[in-house]
Amino acid sequence: MTCRLMTTSIYDCRVESDSIDVTAPVRPDTVLLRDVGPRDGLQAIDDVVSLDVKIALTNGLVAAGVPRIEAGSFVSPRAVPRMADSRHVFDAMSAGASREALVVNERGARAAIDADVDVLVGVVSASDTFSHRNVRMSTADAVAELARIITVASEAGIPVSVDLSAAFGCAFEGRVGVGAVASVAEQIAHAGAVEIVLADTIGAAAPNDIAAVVHEVERRVAPDVRLGLHLHDTRGLALANATAGLEAGIRRFDASSGGLGGCPFSPGATGNVCTEDLVHLFHALGLSTGIDLDELIKVAGIVEHELGTELPSRMLRAGPRFAQLAT
Amino acid sequence: MTCRLMTTSIYDCRVESDSIDVTAPVRPDTVLLRDVGPRDGLQAIDDVVSLDVKIALTNGLVAAGVPRIEAGSFVSPRAVPRMADSRHVFDAMSAGASREALVVNERGARAAIDADVDVLVGVVSASDTFSHRNVRMSTADAVAELARIITVASEAGIPVSVDLSAAFGCAFEGRVGVGAVASVAEQIAHAGAVEIVLADTIGAAAPNDIAAVVHEVERRVAPDVRLGLHLHDTRGLALANATAGLEAGIRRFDASSGGLGGCPFSPGATGNVCTEDLVHLFHALGLSTGIDLDELIKVAGIVEHELGTELPSRMLRAGPRFAQLAT
Repeated sequence: MTCRLMTTSIYDCRVESDSIDVTAPVRPDTVLLRDVGPRDGLQAIDDVVSLDVKIALTNGLVAAGVPRIEAGSFVSPRAVPRMADSRHVFDAMSAGASREALVVNERGARAAIDADVDVLVGVVSASDTFSHRNVRMSTADAVAELARIITVASEAGIPVSVDLSAAFGCAFEGRVGVGAVASVAEQIAHAGAVEIVLADTIGAAAPNDIAAVVHEVERRVAPDVRLGLHLHDTRGLALANATAGLEAGIRRFDASSGGLGGCPFSPGATGNVCTEDLVHLFHALGLSTGIDLDELIKVAGIVEHELGTELPSRMLRAGPRFAQLAT
Repeated sequence: MTCRLMTTSIYDCRVESDSIDVTAPVRPDTVLLRDVGPRDGLQAIDDVVSLDVKIALTNGLVAAGVPRIEAGSFVSPRAVPRMADSRHVFDAMSAGASREALVVNERGARAAIDADVDVLVGVVSASDTFSHRNVRMSTADAVAELARIITVASEAGIPVSVDLSAAFGCAFEGRVGVGAVASVAEQIAHAGAVEIVLADTIGAAAPNDIAAVVHEVERRVAPDVRLGLHLHDTRGLALANATAGLEAGIRRFDASSGGLGGCPFSPGATGNVCTEDLVHLFHALGLSTGIDLDELIKVAGIVEHELGTELPSRMLRAGPRFAQLAT
């Protein structure tokens, strides 16, 4: 078992010489993927998913070589009942990938740390309205809560990554100015996050928006904070936006196995960019991900079979280019 | 009625001062779209489509402002029975768009000219195997046939555009070298085509391939021949590839209303890039198309309703970004 990520935890595998620190820069010829399917993906779909399927998905992703996995969340089970079993997912999770969990307050942070996560994932919205609807707090309150989460995480020596949602537009407010996004990013950086993942929550970004937001946020928060992208394929632009992100220097991407998920506030949203489609693109561009694409596709196929519903994954339908020739 | 395209025909609308010659350069802030749905799209789907639906689609596209439409083909009705009524589509086609028809031999060229087309569309494959399977000729024979088509077209004063299929890979041969593609493009240019549309027939291109092929072909055939792209979304990369095409200087694109169509030799092929999704991207990037996106989406909706099958169009599901805010 090779561990690809190093955190400040004491586990043996995490001090191997070939391991990576999520806070360290990613090489230009490499992309650092985080699969958010087990949390973001499964949370947003209509079906209730068994613990067995969550564990099969998570450990399938580990086995395929996905370096980072958002495997669950530690939030109110009343608010999000389908993530109430996250502790069990983490308990059953194979070694070899960064264990990441979404939290929205100090209490969740402590629960996640108790479940031995490697990275805490916070969430702050660039849009006040979206923040209220998503986490029932203003953006300012979410930043204040984030600071408390980071204090708890720091004591445990755990880095905090933050999803900056509605960074390319809001379902309620429409366009969100680049300056407003960068200003919230600055507050997140000031609170002590090591990574900000700019999220196109409603799938409204075009490639030029990616460049504009990335460059302005980078100008304000680099080099203290690493930037990533969390893209949605709502309007078919996820892979175009990923390409624009690469051109803007981004090497950290969220994606969801099979394209699982979506956004409950985005009507018609097709959801998260599909991990295997994104990996297929990165490999075609000559970038390393450390992921076995064929294994990754198999994992998505298993999830699709278990859910009994067709997932938007292109790899599940067409397969990698040039893999099979017609006769 | 404003006519957007000027050809060498004698129709009044085509000599208006605001009309465009398809052989003229396209301004950098503008994209020249050709909808191939009525021919390429409807030919490839499983359902038989009535003449009424073909005409409704074609004239809906004209009304939405699509400047070029591949409205039918003049080929053997035995080989392609569902295009046997193309003459009737052209007879019923509204004025205001370039009337374009696929032909594969001299006889078809004469029939198309008799139907008063503005542009003849020839097809040559960069892959010999694909050429045999698609038009039952070697690539060399297809180029020779193209030369005969161009002779007939020239006598009638009609320009010939050529689809260069398998330009980014072949369903049978796999990868096709850039040099081989450029060499066939040179032969097409030498035969007298005014435009070459590089076709990603099996949806295998990645954005870097677009740049590589466009630059090499351009080096060999510019400025005599204008280049366009015909993209498929098989692996979710059509809009990323379109963006790469724009960056490489391409301003001519094929697309299919609703994403109609596909490739019969590409297993799992999701088919042609969807016109309204492509127009949505271009408008987001600040490029002019002359097309009313809302009207274009309505046309796709009508076709979807008539066919009774869900089309892959993202605009039909999610609509344009920021068009409707959630409450």
